[in-house]
Amino acid sequence: MSTDKDKLDRLFDFFREIDKEKLITRQNYITGCKRKETDAEHAWHAALMCVLLSRYSNREIDVLKTVTMILIHDIVEIDAGDTYAYDKEGKKTQREREVRAADRIFGILPEEDAEYLRNLWEEFEQSETPEAKFAHVMDNIQPMMLNDNTNGKSWREHDVALSQLLERNKRTHEGSRVLWDYAYENIVMPNVENGNLKDDN
Amino acid sequence: MSTDKDKLDRLFDFFREIDKEKLITRQNYITGCKRKETDAEHAWHAALMCVLLSRYSNREIDVLKTVTMILIHDIVEIDAGDTYAYDKEGKKTQREREVRAADRIFGILPEEDAEYLRNLWEEFEQSETPEAKFAHVMDNIQPMMLNDNTNGKSWREHDVALSQLLERNKRTHEGSRVLWDYAYENIVMPNVENGNLKDDN
Repeated sequence: MSTDKDKLDRLFDFFREIDKEKLITRQNYITGCKRKETDAEHAWHAALMCVLLSRYSNREIDVLKTVTMILIHDIVEIDAGDTYAYDKEGKKTQREREVRAADRIFGILPEEDAEYLRNLWEEFEQSETPEAKFAHVMDNIQPMMLNDNTNGKSWREHDVALSQLLERNKRTHEGSRVLWDYAYENIVMPNVENGNLKDDN
Repeated sequence: MSTDKDKLDRLFDFFREIDKEKLITRQNYITGCKRKETDAEHAWHAALMCVLLSRYSNREIDVLKTVTMILIHDIVEIDAGDTYAYDKEGKKTQREREVRAADRIFGILPEEDAEYLRNLWEEFEQSETPEAKFAHVMDNIQPMMLNDNTNGKSWREHDVALSQLLERNKRTHEGSRVLWDYAYENIVMPNVENGNLKDDN
């Protein structure tokens, strides 16, 4: 039982630590523009979308692994902060800040859990496996959907152009051709037409 | 593709609808007592705990099913509101309010998804299967941990007694004997000793 006690202490230390993800605010607004979304809320939303949309992945995926990847993908922001998708300066130091954060925060866990989640986060970052590619589809489409749902408030505030959105999503089709096509037709283009996204193409 | 389009429209209608779960506030405070937690944040936290703690379930569980159950378990509160664990009056009408909400909200989905999630929610409510019992362990231990982490602020505000907590957790051991024992020794009793929980036993 002493091993269990040690492991559980470290697991619960980690669970207390990651509570801070609720303090990290993203740029997107939630329904009714009442406030901006938190990282934890984004991860919840994208994880549940993954469960229901996994059938549209280009390649077969391990859904639990993908959901876990989504649940943890922003934990590094507890130390590194949220780097807005269209923040050029922040992007320059993002990788270094996030690697340091991953080492510290996943390192709180018992060794085998630390290794599993640290590697899973790195897999997400590299975006080469079917699971990582699909997790990125969720990570990209969820905020598009929220922007669409709040009259593009966040896009307008940051003066986001179609070319920037397309650059950010240039690999989204690698995870799901069906979902990228759907999002392009039903979310992206209507928001170019109504001016929420600047048409610079 | 027209079938896919219809299904995707309904899936995305559901995803937009459940964004409102971020507007539902619970009684627990997050780190630093900065504010109360939202339902979506609670579900994220409990889902990730489930991934890492599933090995402590009394019986073998389907982890993806359990995680999905946790991700959706509070969606009914979008219509029914959060009924605080120790609110006697609210508890009287809770079931009726939540069933109506489940019918409406899960009913937005394509038929087979609606049926799957509606049944999964009911399974959680009945708390008879290993997955439902373990999901309840997460649902109960996560807020205890937050209370412990915020000097019992929410317990103190509601004058919660040990007997109430034990009554609410009388079946927690059915999901995980190890985790209930751990929580009892490391979270519950220290908070009785320091007065965060009223000792009425």
